[in-house]
Amino acid sequence: MEHRLESGTTFFQQAAKEDDAMNAPQSAGQSDPVQLTTPASAKPFPASTKIYVNGTLHDDVRVPMRAITLTPTSPGVGPAGGNGETPNPTLHVYDTSGPYTDPAVTIDLRHGLPPLRAGWISGRNDTEPYDGRTVRPEDNGHSASSEQTETEQFPRDAALRPRRARTGQNATQLHYARKGIITQEMEYVAIRENQLREGYEELVARQHRGDDCGAAIPSQITPEFVRDEIARGRAIIPNNINHPESEPMIIGRNFLVKINANIGNSAISSSIEEEVDKMVWATHWGADTVMDLSTGPDIHKTREWILRNSAVPIGTVPIYQALEKVDGVAEALTWPIFRDTLIEQAEQGVDYFTIHAGVLLRYIPLTAKRATGIVSRGGSILAKWCLSHHQENFLYTNFEEICEIMKTYDIAFSLGDGLRPGAIVDANDAAQFAELETLGELTQIAWKHDVQVMIEGPGHVPMHMIKENMDRQLASCGEAPFYTLGPLTTDIAPGYDHITSAIGAAMIGWYGTAMLCYVTPKEHLGLPNREDVKEGVITYKIAAHAADLAKGHPGAQLRDDVLSKARFEFRWEDQFNLSLDPETALAYHDETLPQDGAKTAHFCSMCGPQFCSMKITQDVRDYAAKHGVAESDAIQLGMTEKSKEFHDAGSEVYQAAK
Amino acid sequence: MEHRLESGTTFFQQAAKEDDAMNAPQSAGQSDPVQLTTPASAKPFPASTKIYVNGTLHDDVRVPMRAITLTPTSPGVGPAGGNGETPNPTLHVYDTSGPYTDPAVTIDLRHGLPPLRAGWISGRNDTEPYDGRTVRPEDNGHSASSEQTETEQFPRDAALRPRRARTGQNATQLHYARKGIITQEMEYVAIRENQLREGYEELVARQHRGDDCGAAIPSQITPEFVRDEIARGRAIIPNNINHPESEPMIIGRNFLVKINANIGNSAISSSIEEEVDKMVWATHWGADTVMDLSTGPDIHKTREWILRNSAVPIGTVPIYQALEKVDGVAEALTWPIFRDTLIEQAEQGVDYFTIHAGVLLRYIPLTAKRATGIVSRGGSILAKWCLSHHQENFLYTNFEEICEIMKTYDIAFSLGDGLRPGAIVDANDAAQFAELETLGELTQIAWKHDVQVMIEGPGHVPMHMIKENMDRQLASCGEAPFYTLGPLTTDIAPGYDHITSAIGAAMIGWYGTAMLCYVTPKEHLGLPNREDVKEGVITYKIAAHAADLAKGHPGAQLRDDVLSKARFEFRWEDQFNLSLDPETALAYHDETLPQDGAKTAHFCSMCGPQFCSMKITQDVRDYAAKHGVAESDAIQLGMTEKSKEFHDAGSEVYQAAK
Repeated sequence: MEHRLESGTTFFQQAAKEDDAMNAPQSAGQSDPVQLTTPASAKPFPASTKIYVNGTLHDDVRVPMRAITLTPTSPGVGPAGGNGETPNPTLHVYDTSGPYTDPAVTIDLRHGLPPLRAGWISGRNDTEPYDGRTVRPEDNGHSASSEQTETEQFPRDAALRPRRARTGQNATQLHYARKGIITQEMEYVAIRENQLREGYEELVARQHRGDDCGAAIPSQITPEFVRDEIARGRAIIPNNINHPESEPMIIGRNFLVKINANIGNSAISSSIEEEVDKMVWATHWGADTVMDLSTGPDIHKTREWILRNSAVPIGTVPIYQALEKVDGVAEALTWPIFRDTLIEQAEQGVDYFTIHAGVLLRYIPLTAKRATGIVSRGGSILAKWCLSHHQENFLYTNFEEICEIMKTYDIAFSLGDGLRPGAIVDANDAAQFAELETLGELTQIAWKHDVQVMIEGPGHVPMHMIKENMDRQLASCGEAPFYTLGPLTTDIAPGYDHITSAIGAAMIGWYGTAMLCYVTPKEHLGLPNREDVKEGVITYKIAAHAADLAKGHPGAQLRDDVLSKARFEFRWEDQFNLSLDPETALAYHDETLPQDGAKTAHFCSMCGPQFCSMKITQDVRDYAAKHGVAESDAIQLGMTEKSKEFHDAGSEVYQAAK
Repeated sequence: MEHRLESGTTFFQQAAKEDDAMNAPQSAGQSDPVQLTTPASAKPFPASTKIYVNGTLHDDVRVPMRAITLTPTSPGVGPAGGNGETPNPTLHVYDTSGPYTDPAVTIDLRHGLPPLRAGWISGRNDTEPYDGRTVRPEDNGHSASSEQTETEQFPRDAALRPRRARTGQNATQLHYARKGIITQEMEYVAIRENQLREGYEELVARQHRGDDCGAAIPSQITPEFVRDEIARGRAIIPNNINHPESEPMIIGRNFLVKINANIGNSAISSSIEEEVDKMVWATHWGADTVMDLSTGPDIHKTREWILRNSAVPIGTVPIYQALEKVDGVAEALTWPIFRDTLIEQAEQGVDYFTIHAGVLLRYIPLTAKRATGIVSRGGSILAKWCLSHHQENFLYTNFEEICEIMKTYDIAFSLGDGLRPGAIVDANDAAQFAELETLGELTQIAWKHDVQVMIEGPGHVPMHMIKENMDRQLASCGEAPFYTLGPLTTDIAPGYDHITSAIGAAMIGWYGTAMLCYVTPKEHLGLPNREDVKEGVITYKIAAHAADLAKGHPGAQLRDDVLSKARFEFRWEDQFNLSLDPETALAYHDETLPQDGAKTAHFCSMCGPQFCSMKITQDVRDYAAKHGVAESDAIQLGMTEKSKEFHDAGSEVYQAAK
């Protein structure tokens, strides 16, 4: 069923309509075809086009960017002044939205995205296709005691077999980096991190330098710099060789701060369609990676749909699926079941695994007096397993074998903070920091295997205790990238935890955290819907960007400067189009001044035409420019004379508005 | 017209209905009575009652607080464990909502709030009633060239004449403080700042100490401490003697961080009813002060309605009204017109005035190369005046006379930052800091007159440049309280500037800013509606509270701890009721699990019953408590034996859920 959405209709509305039209309730034994063909999110941003920048080291590297076209500055407005229109150069911004926003690409979710990295991977000649593991009913939660469901399987091409490193080979980016090899992925992210700045040299020269908190961000990111950062373990490119559809991105503190959005059904609600659409939607608004935290039935199928259609790296917490396989009984988990789950997900193409290998038996009693104990789902599952068996965490005892799997597919570790604090009062306690030390030891083991690693961090932390988290993580974990959940800076605002956590996220991003896991307004209360996902993503783009400014990432401030220039010059449409969420900016403006004329008006609803400070500033600027009034001599000039001149020059009017 | 709102109806819906019912369009010459009798916002919070704490120095001091009643902890849950229910003590929180949330008080907006301070003021015998200035048509913008309107006048009791300090007297709290007098207002705020903590001694003892960034907050706020802080100029109580309805509150960095909400009609839209209701609404959600920034017609009338019904201090920017009186022509402003406006507003009861006396002629050219020039409305008006006349700012040249007015009514200065940066690239520039130095000089002059002062601050500032603002303000302005607008930490998110600015606000609050001026989602785009005002206020309560935690304000963390305890114990209703916005928390929860049973369920929609980390933690906790497993010996115990015991003790089940 191929169709386009009616304009203004969301995917879910459209799907609901079709359900009504067909009037066919889902019957057991017959699969209800997945409706996804063109997700609602698959539309370009206003005034934006997708461009591709070619690699120079590798001619098969094409890096997408979003080019925002701007209108010219009106005569007599802005610092340039002048009598004619002044063009404003196109602004290029980092683009996570994938092929969905490229009208030249035909999207068919049943076919999946083009496998852009397939040739790179096979071309390295160190991996091989193989038959892979057979999918079993319990992969989708269909054990004897579970209910059967008949969700459609992704129609995977039979010829598309999983790949693995050949025997004795290591397929990780870290391995290549240490050998001095600059892969296509490395050149790709180097180009991606550099914002094109043509035509904006003057603005860039005026920018603040930032304060990189000990990091060292060069003014131009080179492929060699990327390779070096990866080789040092300070950055990772999470890119499973079985997820060739993904557009490489880098996570490290000397790069742009990234954000992750969680999606995932649970036992209580949600569907495959919803999850896939949430992924497309989250990346549309700027999610750099997506974690699939599904825990209900059809986990395997859901993940396949997501991976084949995702242009961003996908992370998972494999213990969730393993637990499904033992019907939710934590004590029944075994290493073989867990190991098999890793292989299953590795073959599908998951790019990073959260592994809670630092939840050690001896740390568990440290949480007993906490206000909220263990709040990490994975951490609590393992704690229960450890206590029940009174044995050491099997992820810890089998860590070397996990590394062997990771390097076979180039899956990155996201070493889970199973003992992160879930309340302000529990922040920075003995349990949390004991686990962090262990994560540091595990990092060294992973690095021994050339496996890429990032470290997960908290949680609930008051502002004054945030920096200690960053400092300790850097010291304990050899500068491996830090990936934090918020942190939330207070517990008292359920319903607004995207905001309580954006405060902490921006700060810890500035201090050096490489990726921020988003929090939605529904945190602690319920499952996020589409609007919550968008709100969470935009909020975290703000936190990440604020951190980039504070770190002094080269060029990060350009978007601020270009938007502020548009604001000052009353180029309303440009202001909307340059913003993180053009739709909302436009809608908010139109609530007060819906007329088309207001989009070119040289005032706004807040102050009205008489009170506009921007208008008055233009008068000041024109006057200063015309009379060459410099800082030092302004006060010296003859007062009466100058006053008269100002009046003669037309003090009343905004020159451009005449 | 006296009536109660139908349940679930907002004031505006109700008013609209009545308009329909009467079917009477407003006719010129006949006043349409203001519909405000019981604003929609006038209802207590759930599970909350208003209590009053009596003064001990002054027996006429009664300080309102909100008491939140909590449900007991179920048997076997929480640290206490045990077999019976454990009661949870009532939590008391700071309450800005005024008499509107006290069912014992009859609200009649046409009568105004009870003048709780009237007796205190007259009792000091240093002020006197007098006839006051006659209200003139131009006070409401009805000059020859303006349109006449017939908005209803507040039916002020003819006997209620304005007061002023007697000749030679000084009515300011700073004056009393320096003489060693502890006024009722001082005792009031001392009581108000101390959260009652009865029954919570154990939780309080476990709290983080905070990091007060050089401030010195005692564990118990005494009236003498309040007096001393005011005497030093480090704190102010903005309380015009003609606004006896206001409940005293204190602004200073050794007290709880406060927030201000702006309201105000403009030439483009909004009405008296809307503005008054916005004020009640904003204070309902937590605004500590409200600034009336009206610029349209009927300014005087609007302000009267607001003042007579406001339990929080009201601030204004008098230059806005002065400009209306000269038909919006900045150059036509004169000192006599401005002075008369100050008297007009002083007699009405405005508690603090924003005065842009630091915008000096010689600083104006410093803004010419800025990206967005002068963004302060007041700043730009004065800049235009200065340039036009090529004379020094008349607020600066007449500052001593302004001080004379301020001390006659005890109005506090809010020294305006007319040259604050309006874009990231303009942050911390020469213009901004030149003005700050002048504000420091003016502070000393005001203090010479025993006039209370706070200093306004930016604006748009990236995170790494925020602290410099605080450090310079403390150094330049003798530790007078800082009152900042945000700051916004990036320019790229119009539509979300409550969030871009909450990040900066929380940080600068931690560094020592005493009051945060809120920003709504409509900033830069349009006029905030009711929902925007609420969103802005809640967002800023979060920022202020996060700052209180980081500063280590004694007892601030208690609400976090009590809420987290409720969260851990699945006391859902308590969790909602303890939150900043109980309605939203409940609504978000109910989107996924609307059933009543879910409010007592020991799991939630995010993880479902099998995956609940809180549930598993309780197992861990029970086990640890039962077996006395301490940190050091956990690992030593015989593993097999312990494992068996855990199983025997019922590892599967959450004891309380049986």
